[in-house]
Amino acid sequence: MKNFKTPLNDLRFIHYEVLDSLSEYRKNPAYDEVNKELIDAIASECAKYAENVIFPLNQSGDEQGCSYNDGKVTTPDGYKAAYQQWLQGGWQGLSHPEEFGGQGLPPSLGIMKAEIVGTANWAFGMYPGLSLGAMNTLMLHADKAQKALYLAKLTSGEWMGTMCLTEAQCGSDLGQIKTKAEKNDDGSYTVTGTKIFISSGDHDLTDNIVHIVLARIPGSPEGTKGISLFIVPKYLPDENGAVGEFNQVNTGSIEKKMGIHASSTCVLNFDGAKGFLLGEVNKGVAAMFTFMNTARIGTAIQGIGSAELSFQNSLAYAKERRSMRPLSGAKEPEKVADTLIKHPDVRRMLLKQKAIAEGGRAMLYDTALLADKLSEAKDEAEFKAIDDKLGFLTPILKGFFTELGIEAANEGMQVFGGHGYIKEWGMEQIARDVRISSLYEGTTGIQGLDLLGRKVIQDKFKQYFAFNKRILALYKEILQSPYKVQMLRFIAPLMCYQLRWQKVLLVILFKARKNRDAVGASTHDFLMFSGYLATAFYFTKMALASFKALDQGGELSPDFYQAKLQTADFYFQRLLPRAKGHAAIISGKTASLMDMPEDNFQLE
Amino acid sequence: MKNFKTPLNDLRFIHYEVLDSLSEYRKNPAYDEVNKELIDAIASECAKYAENVIFPLNQSGDEQGCSYNDGKVTTPDGYKAAYQQWLQGGWQGLSHPEEFGGQGLPPSLGIMKAEIVGTANWAFGMYPGLSLGAMNTLMLHADKAQKALYLAKLTSGEWMGTMCLTEAQCGSDLGQIKTKAEKNDDGSYTVTGTKIFISSGDHDLTDNIVHIVLARIPGSPEGTKGISLFIVPKYLPDENGAVGEFNQVNTGSIEKKMGIHASSTCVLNFDGAKGFLLGEVNKGVAAMFTFMNTARIGTAIQGIGSAELSFQNSLAYAKERRSMRPLSGAKEPEKVADTLIKHPDVRRMLLKQKAIAEGGRAMLYDTALLADKLSEAKDEAEFKAIDDKLGFLTPILKGFFTELGIEAANEGMQVFGGHGYIKEWGMEQIARDVRISSLYEGTTGIQGLDLLGRKVIQDKFKQYFAFNKRILALYKEILQSPYKVQMLRFIAPLMCYQLRWQKVLLVILFKARKNRDAVGASTHDFLMFSGYLATAFYFTKMALASFKALDQGGELSPDFYQAKLQTADFYFQRLLPRAKGHAAIISGKTASLMDMPEDNFQLE
Repeated sequence: MKNFKTPLNDLRFIHYEVLDSLSEYRKNPAYDEVNKELIDAIASECAKYAENVIFPLNQSGDEQGCSYNDGKVTTPDGYKAAYQQWLQGGWQGLSHPEEFGGQGLPPSLGIMKAEIVGTANWAFGMYPGLSLGAMNTLMLHADKAQKALYLAKLTSGEWMGTMCLTEAQCGSDLGQIKTKAEKNDDGSYTVTGTKIFISSGDHDLTDNIVHIVLARIPGSPEGTKGISLFIVPKYLPDENGAVGEFNQVNTGSIEKKMGIHASSTCVLNFDGAKGFLLGEVNKGVAAMFTFMNTARIGTAIQGIGSAELSFQNSLAYAKERRSMRPLSGAKEPEKVADTLIKHPDVRRMLLKQKAIAEGGRAMLYDTALLADKLSEAKDEAEFKAIDDKLGFLTPILKGFFTELGIEAANEGMQVFGGHGYIKEWGMEQIARDVRISSLYEGTTGIQGLDLLGRKVIQDKFKQYFAFNKRILALYKEILQSPYKVQMLRFIAPLMCYQLRWQKVLLVILFKARKNRDAVGASTHDFLMFSGYLATAFYFTKMALASFKALDQGGELSPDFYQAKLQTADFYFQRLLPRAKGHAAIISGKTASLMDMPEDNFQLE
Repeated sequence: MKNFKTPLNDLRFIHYEVLDSLSEYRKNPAYDEVNKELIDAIASECAKYAENVIFPLNQSGDEQGCSYNDGKVTTPDGYKAAYQQWLQGGWQGLSHPEEFGGQGLPPSLGIMKAEIVGTANWAFGMYPGLSLGAMNTLMLHADKAQKALYLAKLTSGEWMGTMCLTEAQCGSDLGQIKTKAEKNDDGSYTVTGTKIFISSGDHDLTDNIVHIVLARIPGSPEGTKGISLFIVPKYLPDENGAVGEFNQVNTGSIEKKMGIHASSTCVLNFDGAKGFLLGEVNKGVAAMFTFMNTARIGTAIQGIGSAELSFQNSLAYAKERRSMRPLSGAKEPEKVADTLIKHPDVRRMLLKQKAIAEGGRAMLYDTALLADKLSEAKDEAEFKAIDDKLGFLTPILKGFFTELGIEAANEGMQVFGGHGYIKEWGMEQIARDVRISSLYEGTTGIQGLDLLGRKVIQDKFKQYFAFNKRILALYKEILQSPYKVQMLRFIAPLMCYQLRWQKVLLVILFKARKNRDAVGASTHDFLMFSGYLATAFYFTKMALASFKALDQGGELSPDFYQAKLQTADFYFQRLLPRAKGHAAIISGKTASLMDMPEDNFQLE
């Protein structure tokens, strides 16, 4: 893993030419200082930090990993110093309120920052990333005093935060949570229980860690309706808000994992720790859900960033390594063999990674603009309206682009042949690291259920129709543009797949009338179909922007726009058709999943 | 990774009821003692060894790995003792000639043994497995004296063998080999050079290691036509054939790899080692190729075995772990939540693994019967005829079932949610271990080129038509059977996909007339389509055998046959339709792969 350059051109292209983020920012007076120069400066400064400070620690951090001794976690060599530079750069509070010391920039620029950092070194990026989760939860649900006490420390990055949900017996099924919070006379709570899989649960990067903990107040209703949220700092703040008494949050161990070795994954024992109610009693799960969308966007970044990192490294190898001749004949007959990139099948693997990274990035930034609007919402109704839009895109972005990111990283390894399997090259690390992305923050199965069960059917198709309308609006824009002829090769298939998307949904609904398992049997394939379609939509938008730039002049080189069109062609001809398989599978009988008795799965 | 039971029922079903291996064995007088009792005894004894001796070492071997000190490799704890039990059981020579101390049984039973062992502990199985490769090469190409000197030791397992092909600058492109073999006055050669990625290149399991080395005699033609094969033992045998003088085969290091940590992957320095020509001068690559098919069958086993192991472990977890309720409502409302297996999407992941393991096993055993015939061939023409058949199936078996085995192992992890990522459960190990299967013995890219370029087009479609004829013969058999009505749900789609297979080939050939890159641009998707079709063929055979057994009585329980039919239904409805995506991709323009200039892949 020798190569990483932040794809600044592509970031700029998507922001300025595809999505026109600037017009969106201009709508909000709070963002009146946000202009092209500022965004460029942030992106290139962040890129410097990512490329020079944390990318060089990516492979060594994997090799060394975190260590656990006497209840304390130590991060790999160099991580502490790198985090100090993060603090000095003021990166943590980029998109958080100036009131707490942040820079008050749009959340979408925070997502851009997270992408740059996460691509360079995902395990490192998880520390500040998880802390953002805690910060966002506090922003939404903490009272004034709690905000005053915690948010400045978290915004500066002097302290970090975590999210403590999972317990040994339950992950996504939060209703099974057993951690107990008993009310004390002073209004605080005594928190007792064990949480597992707590990312950044302990480390040596900051003096204090603020845990946001889901727990049950004795006597609360069973299931998810009896869960509340608590702030449980590792050290209680003293009267000056400085690190005070140890609060009996004990780190039991760290997990040995397939990857992200430099990120600590902790078992945390809350041994009668003092906790403070965050938001309302028994509304903890609902409070978590308002935060879930942004957390899942964060996870999608891992898929997209891994595709980018894997692409860049396998591209460099494919241009250098020589092996055999293509079936079409020698391209450099004077050399011992042709470079790998001369082979069509290697180009296929490279372009696949490129298309996944670029398609995902476009969808990510578009979704990020909704996250901006969420933070600008004037009332609950507006918040809900935006959150619903975001909630529709999120499972697609998270579910689809983590699955495809995993595939991309494996293609990157594949380009290296046997060398891909050797640690030294770093390609297998990318594949191991990204493998978790389809597991945490809700597995792909959970995303599929969320999309089809909740966001399409329970929502009575409102957001589903809304996205269909966006596609129709794009057709209209194209057909009214001077590029309608060139764009036919994209809109014709997009229309076909959109119609197919509607058809498969009807098929599912029709089948569900007779068999209630028909929906659950289709969640995965519907999610994947939706992902392929959404990506086709974004590539169509990018193709249109490219034709426009080639015709009217754009900020980037003509080569950039040509390459974008070629990547879009690749996507439409060599990735999108997979959706046909998913559609055909949705048409399959539900019985083919449900009929086998459990005891007959294995008969020995 | 707590669970492993050899799927003895399935082995028996395929051998006795699907393929009728016994009739095949009866055709060869050398196998007149091979009957059901013997095969059952071998399978169950081998299963005991696999389940009780080496399966318990699978996870500990991964954790500890091989170590390298002072030029010597040490295998993980327990491996040496386990290998002693292997020797005592006489397992190494199971399907090798009695003349050298083997048991003279059919190679197909050796493949069954390799599957049982490889499923329990792939890294362990690689040691004897690689040695079989060396033994087979010696059987085919060694002279009488060489056979006498080496084969008895290798057949007993007292010594082991390796295959030394790869060098730092070349893997599949053997023409680039630089290792030098200079002729000595005594007829021997002095071998100098460095080989990498040598599995079992050094270890502590045997006193001597016999390396089969590809090297170039100075003055030979360039490229693959100037490569010869040599026997280079680690220790030269003395006049009694016992371990003698050290032969300057020095182990430079072992690789740090993503997985198969218990298998040593060595850099071997041949520092003027004494080597002995094996076969004819400059015919080394051709000699290697006669061996390649069986080696690739061996690698396919890793995909199939990993699917089985992953399936069994994720099944056990899915039956035990409770999380949420299916959309169709609670199945065990009195429990805190339903077990995972109640969720349709989890059943999908389980059945996918099961279908991959069972489909692959059927194709594996069918191909293995051809390997038997190869060893029985009476002359070169017959050998070539069988080898051509085998050569057609091999890239499909290897390319397709390693790709799907990797997918299966990842689905197994996915069933575990976040726990799948934690080493303790062992699921991530299966995924890491199997990941190499699509890289070694020729990447999937190489298999695709081999299938479409060599085995279909260069072969002038002879084997392609022959396989089509086998499918037609199966239709005929079904339509003449009493089960034709029940079988319609399988033969109707099989026919459609077979026609599609013919159509995509025509599409490729048609495109290739105008653009010579069209073949290379389609190798991957043609390989995958062929894999889905071939697997459909084997599931159709299995379905027919199941209906027959249910009607006329079979050796196994009716539940077994019902489950097989349900697995076949799952395959036809939920895996086979993916082939549609591959067909659509083949129809895509070659330009979408070839047009992007190399410099434009990344423009920063």
